[in-house]
Formats: sequence, structure tokens, C-alpha cells
Amino acid sequence: MTDFTQIKLDIDGAIATITLHRPEKMNAFTNVMRDEMIEAIDITDADDAVRAVIVTGEGERAFCAGADLTPPKNSDGTEKHVFSDPATVDDLSEPLVRDGGGRLVLRLFNSQKPLIGACNGVAVGVGATMQLPFDMRLCSDNARFGFVFAKRGITPEACSSWFLPRLVGMSKALEWCMTGRIFDASEALDAGLVRSVHPQGELMDAARGLASEIAENASPISVAMTRAMMWRLSAEDHPMKAHRIDSRSIYRLSRGADAKEGIASFLEKRPPEFTGKVSTDMPDFYPWWQEPDYT
Amino acid sequence: MTDFTQIKLDIDGAIATITLHRPEKMNAFTNVMRDEMIEAIDITDADDAVRAVIVTGEGERAFCAGADLTPPKNSDGTEKHVFSDPATVDDLSEPLVRDGGGRLVLRLFNSQKPLIGACNGVAVGVGATMQLPFDMRLCSDNARFGFVFAKRGITPEACSSWFLPRLVGMSKALEWCMTGRIFDASEALDAGLVRSVHPQGELMDAARGLASEIAENASPISVAMTRAMMWRLSAEDHPMKAHRIDSRSIYRLSRGADAKEGIASFLEKRPPEFTGKVSTDMPDFYPWWQEPDYT
Amino acid sequence: MTDFTQIKLDIDGAIATITLHRPEKMNAFTNVMRDEMIEAIDITDADDAVRAVIVTGEGERAFCAGADLTPPKNSDGTEKHVFSDPATVDDLSEPLVRDGGGRLVLRLFNSQKPLIGACNGVAVGVGATMQLPFDMRLCSDNARFGFVFAKRGITPEACSSWFLPRLVGMSKALEWCMTGRIFDASEALDAGLVRSVHPQGELMDAARGLASEIAENASPISVAMTRAMMWRLSAEDHPMKAHRIDSRSIYRLSRGADAKEGIASFLEKRPPEFTGKVSTDMPDFYPWWQEPDYT
Repeated sequence: MTDFTQIKLDIDGAIATITLHRPEKMNAFTNVMRDEMIEAIDITDADDAVRAVIVTGEGERAFCAGADLTPPKNSDGTEKHVFSDPATVDDLSEPLVRDGGGRLVLRLFNSQKPLIGACNGVAVGVGATMQLPFDMRLCSDNARFGFVFAKRGITPEACSSWFLPRLVGMSKALEWCMTGRIFDASEALDAGLVRSVHPQGELMDAARGLASEIAENASPISVAMTRAMMWRLSAEDHPMKAHRIDSRSIYRLSRGADAKEGIASFLEKRPPEFTGKVSTDMPDFYPWWQEPDYT
Repeated sequence: MTDFTQIKLDIDGAIATITLHRPEKMNAFTNVMRDEMIEAIDITDADDAVRAVIVTGEGERAFCAGADLTPPKNSDGTEKHVFSDPATVDDLSEPLVRDGGGRLVLRLFNSQKPLIGACNGVAVGVGATMQLPFDMRLCSDNARFGFVFAKRGITPEACSSWFLPRLVGMSKALEWCMTGRIFDASEALDAGLVRSVHPQGELMDAARGLASEIAENASPISVAMTRAMMWRLSAEDHPMKAHRIDSRSIYRLSRGADAKEGIASFLEKRPPEFTGKVSTDMPDFYPWWQEPDYT
Repeated sequence: MTDFTQIKLDIDGAIATITLHRPEKMNAFTNVMRDEMIEAIDITDADDAVRAVIVTGEGERAFCAGADLTPPKNSDGTEKHVFSDPATVDDLSEPLVRDGGGRLVLRLFNSQKPLIGACNGVAVGVGATMQLPFDMRLCSDNARFGFVFAKRGITPEACSSWFLPRLVGMSKALEWCMTGRIFDASEALDAGLVRSVHPQGELMDAARGLASEIAENASPISVAMTRAMMWRLSAEDHPMKAHRIDSRSIYRLSRGADAKEGIASFLEKRPPEFTGKVSTDMPDFYPWWQEPDYT
């Protein structure tokens, strides 16, 4: 396993758990953490044994307290830039400056495995926005969220203007981002930001239960396809685009081994044992899109 | 009336009711049912007396238990293809294979009459996804829903990746489709998949009440225009497109007979009696779009 | 201050209040009111002291009872046109007829200040649709809403086919617009059309509380950017577009005075005192879009 320094990656059977792991800093986000999370997703995507990914934070206090405010250092030890939020902008030496939260979120957006957020405490700034491309979000009853950017004199990042209204509607998204207010688990639940709230000690079991429900019941190929179809085709301006992909998908997958097993297990009233692998058995037209470049 | 074999079409005054009618098969979906439903919508669209359409299933057990799993036969009686879900893929002899649920749903999408779903029991697979382009959905308290595709080794179809997130938000859509779980009327109500839940014996009265509210109060031309405007213009990337259509629509319709009657009935505090016909009186710029081809 | 005749504009510290002011007509909408509201928004945008804008109606009975049904007059005193809803169509002498509600709403859409609706009573027709581009909506417990267009033989206007589904989902939007029904504050709250309901006597205090929360906590530049980002970038078909704007925004703003103050006030646990002005200090790439013409 890769030696990570700011996250942990544990794979236990079909379930991978990524833990943000800087407990002394409330798991504050850095460029190192960003790169390690991207690498972890590369690993979970490449590992056919992994059927669902949980993302949580170390400890009972914070999921992620936002970007680490400590200025980054140059190789000679001098501070690079007096900047409020170093993790969210890359080195100036790069050809194009890019938001770090966005780099992570665009990788999460392309995950082939379902992402389940288990928000175990405070989640502010990029600690909140990085959760938006997760497919499902659970939280502990002591969780607190804050899209605090306007209070810090900056703006929402990590593509949250695209994601947040899709999850909670436009008005709630605007209110949270314009006030910058910190809000609790109950408000997050009411708005649909999280699907369920759990006592701290039961959060991970609930997340694993949901991950297992997917792992034990769903074809990994079906899940990877579903993930891409929902996020991408819902953003089209007409359902015909979905129909084009649906038709190809139903035609190909229905002739595959997983469909055979899906029907057989249904008729035999037993759990399915899918053998299709995301690494080798995705339909030939996948991906059907060309990912846009950053410019 | 056309001789349908797998559905019934009843027109009672201003309200048409389409009933999926294969009670011995839990109203399972077939290509025949698909074609009959499309024909029924052609009929309700062409009949100016019809002001609203209810879609329900025969019996108290199932709305539609999904695609019929019996393999279709060739003309010589041999089975065509060992395929889990024959209704969702057309004959291979067709130039282009198309998802059958999508064919139906794209026709429903273009209905000029309001569609009200009265889900009277189990609705899984295409039995659930065909309901998404309905304008409103009610269900009985014994209704059960399931977007079970990933459990069967296939993917959501009938353009549900486009429709479902518009109705229940992205996270709920993903959770239902990734787990494939069967869920009850209460969960459907909480998520907004249905607008109301009724005792089985009161479901059709509730649906007819809603249909009557539209039939007795709204101009059919206004309703047909509203239906196209909402589904299509909300998917545009800027409100200016809506403004262009709004301006033409208000200008034309406000000079028409229905606007005159609408104002007169309002001022006289009586129900309106609209005379405009969808068949002949839609404004000259309608349809303002070009429907995309399937390719 | 401009002499308005059908609205009032009061600026009290950081909070501007626009009051629809034709109490003898239940604040019914006219072309004059439309032009005055647009002018008021021009004023609040240009005044750096204004950090939030509340829109309400005079009296305890109505926010706005829709378009004034009195036919407009020509310059010689004759009535221009027997038209149900004169305020929603401009003079025929204009090169292109445009919906008046849409003209207002497109200006509200481009407001640089947060818009908070305080709906103090009846809001029907354009009285309801003009509220949709507000960022947040509160109402009194005697508020009543109605998207009554289909009952009047016309169609929803003011770009409501674009806005309403973003706020309440597609099915509720369709039901309200197809039935034309009048509904109460409770139904508006359940559907998310308003964020909170208040006793009539407490409505304005609640609205001012929310306005103050933004004014006292958020950088005006951050808020203006957030407003444009959320409404515009969420309508794109891929999050990459948001990433492009996020990256530029974080890069520029994080080096600005407001970010410095945002971090300093956070570390010193005191309220921020932002000095950035929307009139002069927006980042150089703003606006990043070209507003579409009306054609």
C-alpha cells in the first residue's frame, strides 16, 4: 500500500475507507492531502475488489476544518505567499493556477466507485465542498457545516456552485454561501445535504451498512455506469441524450454475464454474485464523453 | 375505440384513464404494452375533449412489475434471445436498437395533456421509470417502488438519469439506483417522488380530483404550453430563452378567446368555460423547438 | 433620491428596502412599477453602502395582486388594447414585444446585491413570479401564492419556467402552474418556495435579521461573485466551467484586502470589516459571461 502521510486508506473486503488524517490540525486540507486523496481514488478505481468507498475524518471532532491556514514553504524553507488559503491555489510556477479543491472534486466526480461521506464532525470551507460530489452523505449528530467563503473574503470553490444547488436547491445554496453561517446536522438533514444523522458512535456502522448494501446487491459495472449516467446525462438539455446512452447500455449489458446472474439470482431468490469487472468489462462505448480540458 | 390488448383506455368527460392491464402478470411491461400506450397518448392528444390523463394499473397489487421476463418469440415460435428484459430492447432487425422504455417516455414527454400517475401498488424497473415524465404522481399506501436495474446487472433506462434527479435531487436518485432497493410509499413521499399517499380505495378518487381541478380551471392551451415550457425551458443555461418564449406566448395568448374568458370569469367570480382547442388554436410559434433525432 | 410613484426605496445603513406601493390596488403591477423597480435595483447596485436588498409590499393584505387589469391608455387618452394583463406586454410600437415581468426578472437576475423577499400577503401572477429570482424568500402567515396564468388563459411568464423548477422541483412547479390554484404559506414552506413563515408583525424584523447577517459577516465582493456563480455555473453541463471560474476567483480574491481581513478577523475572533467595493474592486475577469440579447 502507498505510504500516505495525511490520509489513511483501508480496504476491508469490498469496502475502502479513506480517512483524512491530521487529527492535530482538525484534518485541515493541504496540497499533500489533496494529492493523496486523488491517488487513493486512483487506487480504489483500479481495484476490482473495491465496491464502495467511505470518506471520513480521524477523531470525533472534525471531518475537515477547511484549508490549512499555515503558509506553505518554498524548498529553501521560506514561506511562499502570504495567502489565506494556500491549499486552494497551486504553485505560481505552474502554467495555470488552479483551485486545489476543484482538482480533487473533479477526480471524485469521475470515480467509478460509489462515494459515501461519513462526516464525523466539523466540516467547513473545502471540508464541506469536497463532500458535494459524494453520492451519499451521512453525518454524526455533532457535525457542523459551513460554506464560510464569503466571511473570509473569498468565494465558494471546488465547483460547489455546480454541485450544491443540485443537492439542496438554489435558495438554500445561496443562503448558506451568502451568510457563511455555520449550521448543524439537523439543518443539513432538513435541506437534504445529508441523508441521515447518527450518534457519533454509530456513524461508521451506518456508512458501512450502506456501502455493504451496494456491494452485496449491485453489479459493479451497473454502479459505475449509473454514476456516470446520472451526473452527466441529467445536465443535458433534452432527455434524448439519455435515451441514446440508455439504449446502448441496455443492449450491451443485458447480453452480459452480470445480467444473466442478476436475473438468475432474482428468480432463485438468492443474493447475486456478479463477476463483471470495472477494469475490463465496461461496455465498449464507455466513456461516451470527452472530458473537457482546463483552460 | 382502438382494440387494445394490454391496456385499457377510458375517456369519461374531460378525463382519460389509461390502465395497464395484464393483471395475471402484475401488469408487466412488453413491447405490445409500450406501443399501445404510445397509441393511447396519440389519442388523448388528438381528442380536444380530453383535458387530463390518469395512468394507473389494473388491480390492487401492482402498477407495473417491470419488464416481462418471458423471452419474446420469433415468427416461427422460437425464442428470440435469452435476455433478461426483452421489452427494453427492440428487435435486432431494426436499423438501430432502442430502449423501449425510452421510446415510451419520450412520447410521454411530448404529451400535450397533463399526465397524472396513480400508482396503485408495486412499481419496479420500467414500472417506476415510466412514471417519471408524468407531471404529478400519487400512490396508494401499499405502493412499493424500485429502481432495481443495478441488482439485475443492467442500468437505469427510460431516460431516468435525466428525469429522476429533477424530481428528487441527485443524492436520492443515486442512492435508489445504486442500491436497487425496494422502498415504500412513505419514502417516496418524503423524497418528493409522489405528491401524496392515499388508502388504496381512495387513490383513484384523489387522482380524478386533481385531474378535475385542472380540467375545470385551466385553459387547455395554457396547460399544453405550460407543460412544454417547464420541461424544456428549465433545462436551458440562461433564463433569456424562457423570456423569448414567454414574450411571444403572453403576446399571442393574451389576445385570444381564452384570455378574454379567463379575465371575464375571474371578474364575474364564476368558473371559466374555455373554448380554445389544442388541435387548432396553439400559437403559431408552437412548437418552438426541433425535436432531436435518435442517432 | 429618485421620485418614485409606485414603489418606495428606503436605504437604512447597509439595508435597502424596496416597497411595492399601490396599496389601493393591492400593489398591482404596472409598467411604471416595473421601470421603477429596475431603476431601484440600478441604485442599490451602484451604492456600495448597500449590502442587501429587501423587497416587500405596502400594507398587511397584499405583496402584489398580479398585473393591473386596467387597460393602459394611449397618449390621447384612449385605451390601448383590451388585454387581460397589460403590464406583461409592452407597447406595440416597440420593435419587439417583450414580457414586462421578464424584463424585471432579468434585471433582478443580474443584481449584485442579495435580494430577500418579504412576502407580506397575497402574491399572484407576476406578484409570485417576480419573487423567484430573489435569493431568499420569507413570508407572513397570511401570505397566499398563485401561479394563476392557466386560469386566465395565458401562460407563466417572467422566466418562471426557468426559475420555479430550480426552487421547488419539477412536479410541484407543474402542479401549481397547471391547476392555477391559490395556496397558503404552509404549502409554500413545505415545497421550499419560502425558507420561513412569520407572524405578519414579525416579518420585516426577520427579513432585516437575515439581511444584517449577510451585511455584517460577508464581503460584498464575495457575495456579488457568489450570486453570479451559483445562478450561472449551476446551469452549465459540466463542473469544469465552475472550476475555471473558481480558480481565477480564488486566485484573485485571496490576494485582496477582504481575504486578509477575513482571515485576520477570524483569527482574532471579531467581526470582519470589509473594505472592498463592488463598484471598483470586482476581479478583472468579472463579468466572465456575455449576456444574451433578446431576439
